Amino acid sequence: DVLMKKNHQIRLISVESLKPSDTFARRHNSATPEEQTKMSESVGFDSIESLIDATVPKSIRIESMKFSKFDQGLTESQMIDHMKMLADKNKVFKSFIGMGYYNTSVPAVILRNIMENPGWYTQYTPYQAEISQGRLESLLNYQTVITDLTGLPMSNASLLDEGTAAAEAMAMCNNIQKGKKKTFIIASNCHPQTIDICKTRADGFDLKVVTSDLKDIDYSSGDVCGVLVQYPGTEGEVLDYGEFVKKAHASGVKVVMATDLLALTMLKPPGEFGADIVVGSAQRFGVPMGYGGPHAAFLATSQDYKRMMPGRIIGVSVDSSGKPALRMAMQTREQHIRRDKATSNICTAQALLANMAAMYAVYHGPEGLKVIAQRVHGLAGTFAHGLKKLGTVDVQGGAFFDTVKIKCADAHAIADAATKSGMNLRIVDSNNITVAFDETTTLEDVGELFKVFSGGKPVPFTAASLAPEVQNAIPAGLVRESPYLTHPIFNSYHTEHELLRYLHRLQAKDLSLCHSMIPLGSCTMKLNATVEMMPVTWPEFANLHPFAPTEQAAGYQEMFDDLGDLLCTITGFDSFSLQPNAGAAGEYAGLMVIRAYHMARGDHHRNVCIIPVSAHGTNPASAAMCGMKIVTIGTDAKGNINIPELKKAAEANKDNLSALMVTYPSTHGVYEEGIDEICKIIHDNGGQVYMDGANMNAQVGLTSPGYIGADVCHLNLHKTFCIPHGGGGPGMGPIGVKKHLAPYLPSHPVVSTGGLPAPEKAEPMGTIAAAPWGSALILPISYTYIAMMGSKGLTDASKIAILSANYMAKRLENHYPVLFRGVNGTVAHEFIIDLRGFKNTAGIEPEDVAKRLIDYGFHGPTMSWPVPGTLMIEPTESESKAELDRFCDALISIREEIAQIESGKVDANNNVLKGAPHPPSVLMADSWTKPYSRDTAAFPASWLRSSKFWPTTGRVDNVYGDRNLVCTLQPEAVEEAAAATA
Amino acid sequence: DVLMKKNHQIRLISVESLKPSDTFARRHNSATPEEQTKMSESVGFDSIESLIDATVPKSIRIESMKFSKFDQGLTESQMIDHMKMLADKNKVFKSFIGMGYYNTSVPAVILRNIMENPGWYTQYTPYQAEISQGRLESLLNYQTVITDLTGLPMSNASLLDEGTAAAEAMAMCNNIQKGKKKTFIIASNCHPQTIDICKTRADGFDLKVVTSDLKDIDYSSGDVCGVLVQYPGTEGEVLDYGEFVKKAHASGVKVVMATDLLALTMLKPPGEFGADIVVGSAQRFGVPMGYGGPHAAFLATSQDYKRMMPGRIIGVSVDSSGKPALRMAMQTREQHIRRDKATSNICTAQALLANMAAMYAVYHGPEGLKVIAQRVHGLAGTFAHGLKKLGTVDVQGGAFFDTVKIKCADAHAIADAATKSGMNLRIVDSNNITVAFDETTTLEDVGELFKVFSGGKPVPFTAASLAPEVQNAIPAGLVRESPYLTHPIFNSYHTEHELLRYLHRLQAKDLSLCHSMIPLGSCTMKLNATVEMMPVTWPEFANLHPFAPTEQAAGYQEMFDDLGDLLCTITGFDSFSLQPNAGAAGEYAGLMVIRAYHMARGDHHRNVCIIPVSAHGTNPASAAMCGMKIVTIGTDAKGNINIPELKKAAEANKDNLSALMVTYPSTHGVYEEGIDEICKIIHDNGGQVYMDGANMNAQVGLTSPGYIGADVCHLNLHKTFCIPHGGGGPGMGPIGVKKHLAPYLPSHPVVSTGGLPAPEKAEPMGTIAAAPWGSALILPISYTYIAMMGSKGLTDASKIAILSANYMAKRLENHYPVLFRGVNGTVAHEFIIDLRGFKNTAGIEPEDVAKRLIDYGFHGPTMSWPVPGTLMIEPTESESKAELDRFCDALISIREEIAQIESGKVDANNNVLKGAPHPPSVLMADSWTKPYSRDTAAFPASWLRSSKFWPTTGRVDNVYGDRNLVCTLQPEAVEEAAAATA
Ligand SMILES: Cc1ncc(COP(=O)(O)O)c(C=O)c1O
Ligand SMILES: Cc1ncc(COP(=O)(O)O)c(C=O)c1O
Ligand SMILES: O=C([O-])O
Repeated sequence: DVLMKKNHQIRLISVESLKPSDTFARRHNSATPEEQTKMSESVGFDSIESLIDATVPKSIRIESMKFSKFDQGLTESQMIDHMKMLADKNKVFKSFIGMGYYNTSVPAVILRNIMENPGWYTQYTPYQAEISQGRLESLLNYQTVITDLTGLPMSNASLLDEGTAAAEAMAMCNNIQKGKKKTFIIASNCHPQTIDICKTRADGFDLKVVTSDLKDIDYSSGDVCGVLVQYPGTEGEVLDYGEFVKKAHASGVKVVMATDLLALTMLKPPGEFGADIVVGSAQRFGVPMGYGGPHAAFLATSQDYKRMMPGRIIGVSVDSSGKPALRMAMQTREQHIRRDKATSNICTAQALLANMAAMYAVYHGPEGLKVIAQRVHGLAGTFAHGLKKLGTVDVQGGAFFDTVKIKCADAHAIADAATKSGMNLRIVDSNNITVAFDETTTLEDVGELFKVFSGGKPVPFTAASLAPEVQNAIPAGLVRESPYLTHPIFNSYHTEHELLRYLHRLQAKDLSLCHSMIPLGSCTMKLNATVEMMPVTWPEFANLHPFAPTEQAAGYQEMFDDLGDLLCTITGFDSFSLQPNAGAAGEYAGLMVIRAYHMARGDHHRNVCIIPVSAHGTNPASAAMCGMKIVTIGTDAKGNINIPELKKAAEANKDNLSALMVTYPSTHGVYEEGIDEICKIIHDNGGQVYMDGANMNAQVGLTSPGYIGADVCHLNLHKTFCIPHGGGGPGMGPIGVKKHLAPYLPSHPVVSTGGLPAPEKAEPMGTIAAAPWGSALILPISYTYIAMMGSKGLTDASKIAILSANYMAKRLENHYPVLFRGVNGTVAHEFIIDLRGFKNTAGIEPEDVAKRLIDYGFHGPTMSWPVPGTLMIEPTESESKAELDRFCDALISIREEIAQIESGKVDANNNVLKGAPHPPSVLMADSWTKPYSRDTAAFPASWLRSSKFWPTTGRVDNVYGDRNLVCTLQPEAVEEAAAATA
Repeated sequence: DVLMKKNHQIRLISVESLKPSDTFARRHNSATPEEQTKMSESVGFDSIESLIDATVPKSIRIESMKFSKFDQGLTESQMIDHMKMLADKNKVFKSFIGMGYYNTSVPAVILRNIMENPGWYTQYTPYQAEISQGRLESLLNYQTVITDLTGLPMSNASLLDEGTAAAEAMAMCNNIQKGKKKTFIIASNCHPQTIDICKTRADGFDLKVVTSDLKDIDYSSGDVCGVLVQYPGTEGEVLDYGEFVKKAHASGVKVVMATDLLALTMLKPPGEFGADIVVGSAQRFGVPMGYGGPHAAFLATSQDYKRMMPGRIIGVSVDSSGKPALRMAMQTREQHIRRDKATSNICTAQALLANMAAMYAVYHGPEGLKVIAQRVHGLAGTFAHGLKKLGTVDVQGGAFFDTVKIKCADAHAIADAATKSGMNLRIVDSNNITVAFDETTTLEDVGELFKVFSGGKPVPFTAASLAPEVQNAIPAGLVRESPYLTHPIFNSYHTEHELLRYLHRLQAKDLSLCHSMIPLGSCTMKLNATVEMMPVTWPEFANLHPFAPTEQAAGYQEMFDDLGDLLCTITGFDSFSLQPNAGAAGEYAGLMVIRAYHMARGDHHRNVCIIPVSAHGTNPASAAMCGMKIVTIGTDAKGNINIPELKKAAEANKDNLSALMVTYPSTHGVYEEGIDEICKIIHDNGGQVYMDGANMNAQVGLTSPGYIGADVCHLNLHKTFCIPHGGGGPGMGPIGVKKHLAPYLPSHPVVSTGGLPAPEKAEPMGTIAAAPWGSALILPISYTYIAMMGSKGLTDASKIAILSANYMAKRLENHYPVLFRGVNGTVAHEFIIDLRGFKNTAGIEPEDVAKRLIDYGFHGPTMSWPVPGTLMIEPTESESKAELDRFCDALISIREEIAQIESGKVDANNNVLKGAPHPPSVLMADSWTKPYSRDTAAFPASWLRSSKFWPTTGRVDNVYGDRNLVCTLQPEAVEEAAAATA
């Protein structure tokens, strides 16, 4: 560009220089062209192009990528304009649909300070407890909300949605019964999507699901492991389950209850009926409907079954000074440990949304929540009362909380009339309608509904005028008597200033991408750009009910279609499903598609899944959930799949081979040269190739799963495509498939859906998530990322990610062995450094290095996975050379600290690594007994002097916490006693 | 409310309980009814009502307050809906108007992380340097942007707007010439609002302003102190001022240049012409137009005049460890010290917007800014070239940067055609139009403009097709050759991750309302609620040009009208002007209204202003700027105005009395019982009563300035009405007046305006601010606050603010003498504790207490004002009892620390107070030589153990910095040398 030249005499204007200047790719991709060259040279290549050529195998390299839309990339302001245009196509009607999704008033202070705050949304899952005490406290609050309201003592820290939570509960029942009772009964008063998800999921566990009217439930077969009921029911009824639970228990049947948190502030909690497992969604606690998600689901259970619970659980433990400190508990339950023995594959969950829901409870407190619930109940009662007076329809009797069921001559006519007034009702069938009320409903809304139901006749009363005649409709026996949310945290922060400060106090304890790079191998913690995040909280995206008529969501639908197309171009696939809510959910969905494909071809017996040892734990767990038999194969010394072994396994299982699960580039950070051969072996033996797309960031624009030979692949939109990690979710795991698999992509019982683009025929394999398009609200993030980057920006991102990894590997290789490289000595977008030797030479474990990195202001890389005793580093394209250097400097400095131990200069048991991290409370204690200085502990690098992120606890003791399991807030007295004895 | 009762058997629903539950007042006003009673009792009253009755004099107490609109208060979601409705009434046309306001692309990362982030917008002015290093660094960056681009070595840290900056420069010229040359010439190529503001302002300095064509400027009178020219000119021309400056200087005339920062990236800077003072607006550096503001203006000058500069200036100094640290420099220049000797009254400025502009420069860097400038220039050139080809109009010759002047047959017809295409042009006169281009203009926009100018004929080319023919229009001699923004800060943070982290690194150093209460007497640091802040960044409010046709701003106009009405109801006045941009600007405007009133009545001689000693420094400074003669009167032992003295002064000046300036409740925190008598004395002697509304938070709903007897009053919307302090601005200082003064309220030369509601006749006294309605963009904050609180919520706020102050005074009175109380022993909404005794007993100064408070996590109260040696504490209604208690606990604990010195137990020169604050670098240094423990230094209160805000430097040395004045970023080598010798 001539104008950039230093020479001021050149005075002609170029068209190029007049194009909008707020381009995005240069803000996302960090290395400038000059830096790219410099970094490439340092790795031994004359340019980034030659580095990439040497790294990505020729056989799989694509020429280029071209989008039919957005190929050049939009600028930031063009993007915002485009999203406004889509937003305008969404029509926000008032929803009275219910079915697990309710309007809610998101407290503005929570919206701005959590949902719109990178300090909260860019955090990683709290694996490094010492720099995560803020969100750990918030998630403990969440667990306490769940246990208090459900009346059961144990809760996890969120699941993906209510439907999959129910399926998890079903799997628990199976597990509790040791797999010996193979029927699971679902009462027909559950939400249809819950029923379908369980039905889909049951197959893999070899369970038979029976749907039955409550009154017809029959345990006489003796084969029933559990029963699922809903409370209040999907059509609103509030039943006393006391006898029901007794009867089930008498038959040895476990009872799962799906429930509603707001209702539980007024209703007797499930735990008091004796329910074994309780599930539900925390959406209406201040999380927008978002056309389906993301929202936090919950699962609570009794002490008996706590070690069978799926998902992450936060627990109290102590730190190195004996002070109370939080961390994730009982990790041995999780898929990364149990692999194919796991009964759940859940990994990424809904941490950010759980935090929002917890803060909603903190802000309102027990009294405030009850006021809201009573108001909702009162509006429902007023509505029912008015309808009875009108007499045009038949209000169904019985107790209800927020949902009124109405029998009428023509349900569609009434719903249409409501639509004309901007209101959506639920049509149960042609003669039945339900109307669900929520926090945002007003008396005026009730008045509008009267008009709809009056069939044109004047309404002789107002909602307000009726109110004094209305009675509370909850039977005495079902009224909640037990207290809840009694902890001071739920009774202190009820003004905006108090909540604001509580939020900021917690935030200040947590390291996020606002502080420094988080180079977690396999996690792709890249920039979550502001423009990507902005549309997420626009009302036109946030306030749509997932079951609203699709014509009201034209903006969303257009985005889904375009996103489907773009993802197909990127992956080389023919169709996408946007339903799965996380990577692991995508794996499960993809394998189920493969299963359905085999079934459709009569290959019912194909159930062997080959998985390399190096696979992520979710892979075997997902395969197991599909009822597959897992055959594990090894890797060779270079970290590549052992092809002869694979071949043997494939041929040995030729007749029953279902699939191979393979991650590419491998979890070892290498582009296996044999990948096309691997795919061919599987195909030759009748199998399908499932590719784990976690490492897609190393493929975009350079190669693609479809080109390589995969048949199906999930994408972690929360890795490659910029959805922020949220401290452990939300995520999105859409799956792409080749044409032959497209018919089997999941659908949905309420809003039918399928592949995007749609295949010619559809034979959906079932339902994977509660909402038709999963967590639709966060899809704008990935969509805007792709649209702003354009095909070149995205390709550059992959290249720079690879360059960055190689640059770091080069800087570190003289200090730490770098495990695994490709044929030309380069690594992919991530690499592994080997710490195993230090165990012998210095008594140092990877954890010591990770904790010492905290003192340097960094979050440690992925630890001991996929290879025990190592660290896996993934820098991403969004980190500047300066930041990469800073991280390398820290690791090199730590290597020198280790060398001091090796040389005997410092004590192997008492040194800066073993003592790490060093919180201020320790560093400025009056007594200092360490053999190293405070200064060495606190300021081991120069950059720390001008700005340092402080850990708030010393190293947290995992074992203590698991032995003394405490997973909720304790009464203050107990907390104080614990702190005092500490 | 029956539903709140614990008794679950009551089952009737009340209408009240069905009203929306997201009410606002309880989120803003902290104390619950139970707490109110408890706190009242602790002060010796049985209820808050009786406390208020005893505190607010009966004679001035109003019965109640009632709004014609919003009386009940809207809920948070109703408020958002209402603001959306108003937003929809604003039409965002593309602006090509220029005149100092340009469209700009606010980088999203800056929007979200500064403008929408309470961590930045709730900060106070950086008086406590040790907990303000983040924004101090950012403001130093701002000063460096200004000095680098203007080519002058000294800049302040922002002024209110470009017009007032020019007026400040005029005053400086007068001052430089020691008031001996009484003519100031303004070239007619300045913006009309700049000219009018200077004209209005000149009177007070007894200056004659002559507006003159550049070519006709004549210094021969020998009476010219300075001349103001604009570069580029208001109609776009870019002139070489080399000879002009030489000629002026040869005549002993100082040259002020108004300029444009973006243009200066391409143009020879004013400093290189020899300009003495340079002013302008930093708006187009990423700050939205906002229908007029807020934006940061700048003023730069040479070393010679630095001590005459108005406003706050950030400078480098050292801390107690000798390390470089920043703080406000040369405070002795400011009005709070110089009072009626001050030549400027500026206090609150535009810190937040200066930070945004500085970060825009940091994000783009010198190259990026130049690319933007060249693009804008290229688009302007393409436009001019196309018009010449079209030949329908006459493009004026000469060099331009971004604005093209066009001669045409019918300017209005063309402008109307543009309006039809959604574009606003500037009509200079009936035959002249200008079109100003900016960062957001596109080639397509230029094409649309061609259509407008083609008069319906087809345009035979596109903008893109013309570009290659276009030449850079800047003459060689005016091309900028000198480098700028060479410091690494402007060359490192060009990706979103890097900037995000830089922003958060700075934010982490600064204490804000996100951390703890900031109980600054006279500053009313109350909650800045999220819902209030949200509309501020909606495009329909943010992207309007202040001179856009008012019918495009119908939403704004409706809000102005309603806000005028509401403020009239609240204050008891008849009309309001929304023009003044801060409290001090309001004072000046109000006094000028009084002056105009006297003039209109032929009382030209009335120029005496009586001001109590206890008045804020802005009061005498403002009066002096109006050319008033100030008569100071004292207070009695109880802190009340000495009425006999006042009477004497009034009577002595009977014939020349213009006004009294009085703060109510007094700056001593007392409701003077004699206030009605005071007003009567003034009126009886022909004067008008100006009330300083800084303490309005103690009046709302209980009394009012109008009811008390004031004739005019300013409101600090950034105190009483929730505009956040922004680290030292923005603010808003609208003035309310009684009917007889309403005609004189300011108007505006471009968009005429006046009182709201409009008086029958108008004889405006001039122009006070560059934009017709001041900083319109932040008016939604005050408007939503009032609308959500309703009349009762606002009245409760005043009551609870008073209760909180009394509660604290009670808790503290046994530990510190509380100065000044009302007749019943109560205080108003703030109170003063006396530390003067400690000087003798322990060698302790107020500063020691304020700095020690930092160790406790608190920002110190207002120090040594209005009474030297004291602290003035204002808690506000938004602080919870728990927070008030925490603050009292800290002060009581510090009192105990002082007692230790008094008793001789600890050293008077070396103790926790003198050593405070204690940053981590000191606390964890290896050597510790203090006589107290690290633990005592760092954790003097229990709450600090779970969460502590760390100061980042030791106590900053003010004297050193003023002696070694450095007010810009220094070359890195210099910085490093300074750090090394530290
Ligand atoms: C290789 C790989 N596969 C699958 C997953 C699971 O993805 P998710 O956490 O989204 O369920 C991960 C997550 O880290 C992964 O690294
Ligand atoms: C009593 C009083 N008057 C006037 C002012 C000046 O207001 P501003 O800073 O908005 O110009 C202040 C500011 O603190 C004040 O306290
Ligand atoms: O900045 C103030 O002095 O209010």
